Amino acid sequence: MELLKERIRKDGVLKPGNVLKVDNFLNHQMDIKLMNEIGKEFKKRFEGEQIDKILTIEASGIGIAAIVAQYFDCNMVFAKKSKSINLDGDMLTAKIESFTHKRVYDVIVSKKFINPGEKILVIDDFMANGCAARGLCKLIVDAGAEIVGIGIVIEKGFQSGGQDLRDQGFRVESLAIVDGMDDEAGTIQFRE
Amino acid sequence: MELLKERIRKDGVLKPGNVLKVDNFLNHQMDIKLMNEIGKEFKKRFEGEQIDKILTIEASGIGIAAIVAQYFDCNMVFAKKSKSINLDGDMLTAKIESFTHKRVYDVIVSKKFINPGEKILVIDDFMANGCAARGLCKLIVDAGAEIVGIGIVIEKGFQSGGQDLRDQGFRVESLAIVDGMDDEAGTIQFRE
Repeated sequence: MELLKERIRKDGVLKPGNVLKVDNFLNHQMDIKLMNEIGKEFKKRFEGEQIDKILTIEASGIGIAAIVAQYFDCNMVFAKKSKSINLDGDMLTAKIESFTHKRVYDVIVSKKFINPGEKILVIDDFMANGCAARGLCKLIVDAGAEIVGIGIVIEKGFQSGGQDLRDQGFRVESLAIVDGMDDEAGTIQFRE
Repeated sequence: MELLKERIRKDGVLKPGNVLKVDNFLNHQMDIKLMNEIGKEFKKRFEGEQIDKILTIEASGIGIAAIVAQYFDCNMVFAKKSKSINLDGDMLTAKIESFTHKRVYDVIVSKKFINPGEKILVIDDFMANGCAARGLCKLIVDAGAEIVGIGIVIEKGFQSGGQDLRDQGFRVESLAIVDGMDDEAGTIQFRE
């Protein structure tokens, strides 16, 4: 998605350790017009697919998934990272390791919000090692629902998450795949 | 907002301790069509006001705020509850106490995303003791920006947060104000 790559080139900040900061438009401040273009692009990529529900994970996936859901005319569910007193009843759970926060989370979704047979699209802002997406896929499989695909805004193609999931037969659509970055030179390479 | 009150009556679950669960449509599964109606209602309530940016707090405010921002044609910023390695530079900070999670959070927003003189609308899903809204207002004041108002989807009118903020001169627009609930009888009273 050329518009997104241009924006990453313009506003993305590269930091040592292969950190790409896009908090100017994606995961702290959100450019709502760009989110709408992202929603249209996911709709185009999954055109013709039946999507009953979108599943994402808190926090930064939520805003994107809410806007994307408008284009699929469906509801959105976000998985939660810690048990809250407001969550009870039967839960689907998975463990995920966050690349950003360097810790392991329990991720939970109430069973009543993913129903057997539903066709689910996973949406998230970033994919690096793919742990979050794999955790969400596990929740869907455990619920007896169907994973239509995984839509990612920015994939770090030099980490193995996306390739591993594709090798397992999942359809992964990433709107921008970063194949390399050099924080000293300030350069970033996207996959064609 | 009658549509919202009807939905709370239909799908809200009352629990002991004045807990109102609306995870079916608001803060775990999100009914995106209802979120759009909520966006239109906030736009109507703040009609004629200049809104440069919407500020909310992770996690459950994000989806609502993203969709509401579409109606004000502006960007959205969400405050974060814990320090991440991807957040650096100058930060605005406040402490808030969560009624739901019974703990105190540090809330942070990068200074570069709230600029002096900007007119900000605070959006959140719930208000009980008002700590989250007061924390967000502190961030805005510390940034030298202006608080146009506070838009809340569901206010617990029997807790003091909303009244305290109104007494301090803030414009608080709550789409449904719950004045009382009885979990044994399964009844809920809304303010007229």
